[in-house]
Amino acid sequence: MTSVRPVASPDRVAETFAPLNVGLLGFGTVGSAFATLLGERAPHIEKLTGRLPVLGEALTTSKGDFAQILASSDLIVELIGGIEPAREYVLTALQAGKHVVTANKQLLSQHGEELFEAARASGVQLRFEAAVAGVVPVIRVLCESLAGAHVERIHGIVNGTTNFILSEMTRGSSYEQALVEAQRQGYAEADPSDDVSGRDAAAKMAILARLAFGTPVHIDQVPYEGIEQLQTDDLQYARELGLGLKLIGTAERRDGGLSVRVHPAFLYSGHPLASVNGPFNAVTVESDAITEITMSGPGAGGRQTASAVLGDLVSAMLPLGAPSAPLDPLPLVQDVESGFYIHMEVADTPGTLASIAQLLGEQGASIKSVAQHGLGEHARLVMVIHPLAESRLREALKRIAALDFLRSTPRAIRVIEEEFM
Amino acid sequence: MTSVRPVASPDRVAETFAPLNVGLLGFGTVGSAFATLLGERAPHIEKLTGRLPVLGEALTTSKGDFAQILASSDLIVELIGGIEPAREYVLTALQAGKHVVTANKQLLSQHGEELFEAARASGVQLRFEAAVAGVVPVIRVLCESLAGAHVERIHGIVNGTTNFILSEMTRGSSYEQALVEAQRQGYAEADPSDDVSGRDAAAKMAILARLAFGTPVHIDQVPYEGIEQLQTDDLQYARELGLGLKLIGTAERRDGGLSVRVHPAFLYSGHPLASVNGPFNAVTVESDAITEITMSGPGAGGRQTASAVLGDLVSAMLPLGAPSAPLDPLPLVQDVESGFYIHMEVADTPGTLASIAQLLGEQGASIKSVAQHGLGEHARLVMVIHPLAESRLREALKRIAALDFLRSTPRAIRVIEEEFM
Repeated sequence: MTSVRPVASPDRVAETFAPLNVGLLGFGTVGSAFATLLGERAPHIEKLTGRLPVLGEALTTSKGDFAQILASSDLIVELIGGIEPAREYVLTALQAGKHVVTANKQLLSQHGEELFEAARASGVQLRFEAAVAGVVPVIRVLCESLAGAHVERIHGIVNGTTNFILSEMTRGSSYEQALVEAQRQGYAEADPSDDVSGRDAAAKMAILARLAFGTPVHIDQVPYEGIEQLQTDDLQYARELGLGLKLIGTAERRDGGLSVRVHPAFLYSGHPLASVNGPFNAVTVESDAITEITMSGPGAGGRQTASAVLGDLVSAMLPLGAPSAPLDPLPLVQDVESGFYIHMEVADTPGTLASIAQLLGEQGASIKSVAQHGLGEHARLVMVIHPLAESRLREALKRIAALDFLRSTPRAIRVIEEEFM
Repeated sequence: MTSVRPVASPDRVAETFAPLNVGLLGFGTVGSAFATLLGERAPHIEKLTGRLPVLGEALTTSKGDFAQILASSDLIVELIGGIEPAREYVLTALQAGKHVVTANKQLLSQHGEELFEAARASGVQLRFEAAVAGVVPVIRVLCESLAGAHVERIHGIVNGTTNFILSEMTRGSSYEQALVEAQRQGYAEADPSDDVSGRDAAAKMAILARLAFGTPVHIDQVPYEGIEQLQTDDLQYARELGLGLKLIGTAERRDGGLSVRVHPAFLYSGHPLASVNGPFNAVTVESDAITEITMSGPGAGGRQTASAVLGDLVSAMLPLGAPSAPLDPLPLVQDVESGFYIHMEVADTPGTLASIAQLLGEQGASIKSVAQHGLGEHARLVMVIHPLAESRLREALKRIAALDFLRSTPRAIRVIEEEFM
């Protein structure tokens, strides 16, 4: 049923270098997820970069010695969070000439300049994609793709907890009910104040503003309002006006300066952030030359955050700027399964649907939904079937076309079944 | 009305190096837009990188000599398009140790391996963000952010012409009418066959598949179907089933191999690509560890494509991995204008709306929409006003709260007015 076309076997990365020793600081939710993910992906990363990343003992609150970890590592991953001792460790590592990858938004929004300067002075990399918007690659895009652009404005949904709560409130929950549900599903902490007050989002917007506008911004310079005072009623009334409510971080040129702020805001349904629901994050960047780019994805989760950290680690190892040699190339598959929409015109007589359903069933197709429209003596039959290999669909259509009550050639269009939040 | 808080003046990039000589091949829509954009952004790029990018004479069909341009350039920007002589020029430049930035999807989908290998052999950069999905940074994200990830699937709307035509057909136009409208608005060429046949999208999916799955894919290995045969009727019937129609490129792991293909497909409304309308492009990348990332933005346009080329040029110049020193820092602005939603409970007596409107008007506010709900003796008044400085809104609310017919403290929530396609 499935034809596989072989492709030529390509060259592998020929040279192999010494392992890359990775020092991990912190072993909480993200730290342990990172250790697992690195273990899974290490063989692939070795093929890609020529170096096998090897994780030493992690520094936790109860064991490990920072000086020893630093001395034995080529690259430090900081996942402790908070200011001290994270600040001291990151600074020391940069000054010692080690690359650093961190997910620490507090640290960067309060001591970013000191750390950036230390990285530049040592000529090492300091990467922090996971500090803002989880796996959504907004840091890289601002620092690299848009480094030469004149950014006008950033709007972001950069806190998944509050976006989840607001999605629940839009469906009628009170703030209190929505918060309990967020805690039950693991999207809010026992003490949610950093999230619901807007302070977490303010830290992230300070970081994005620095990168987009070249202007140092401390979290204390970012006014913020949270969602604790919002009434479910407001969301209902606003819907009558065509508005949806989000906690929005903004950084934009205003009055010859820069405005950075976080507050609840209503959006019209056409705004690219209006359809971002649940614990997702999204960021829109506007600039004259690009019009606008929107990026969205999960804003939290241990494995998701760990994936962003891993992307930074690989970037620090990679000779950048051109694709690597082919890696583990896959055979190309031609005959794949899809859902299908099928359109037919038939004589409006009994038994037509049963005959068609039988021919589809013989090829393994099952019907998901059907709509029939009378057209005098004819009827239009429109249906969606569950996934079926293309070769089988073609065979079914050939047999259906031969039925004597068919009044047109059947038409089929593929249907993608996946749904997302 | 606007308070500006000064920020400390930071260090500038101290060192200045020789200019970066940029050789431009091709001076059509994108080439001329690139020359203009580079001129505008050159001073900023010099501050960022320490080198001023300087554009020499461009190679056009009627003037310029490639060998001479190559000899006098540090980096080549190839915007000729097509296979020859673009292939020969790019290959020669890479072999001569020059970085190359190109937007040429045909070239990469047919001769990518040869060029990638030449770039690796010379240790130079070959960047091509503009070849797929315009300014949407999918190339960089696949090559860098997701280099270590196990990608499962990519779905993309990678041709803006066909997405525009399908958006028009969804509103009832025939295919022929929609195509004429696309040509009138500059979204389709006089000969649109490369776009509407799906071949343009197939070239782009071959490139994305190579980057996401490490597997060389030639455009001739990508089966594609276009949109020429679609009936407006199908879009209408499908809407009854909750489906919207897009031209979708897919690259995914299937049956132990890789399937890459382009065809029209229906999507349920919850799919992140379902809401991408008009001449926009969008790409969704799925992977176990990241769940999914979606990126969207304009898919074409001379200035937009030029912006992606410029991002690649800056990346080739930048010492990567840590933010640059602050650049042209902006003063922080605190009192900014926003639209506002305002909620009030008032006694249901004549003249209340007039009194409130007058107090708003005195602060410069104008009302965009109002809804009033009776509650027995009270009424709820909900309105949206056009942008107003925060300080003025606070003053208006203070005065409104003092009115004797007010039955609750007025509540205000900001409204973001921008709408997008």
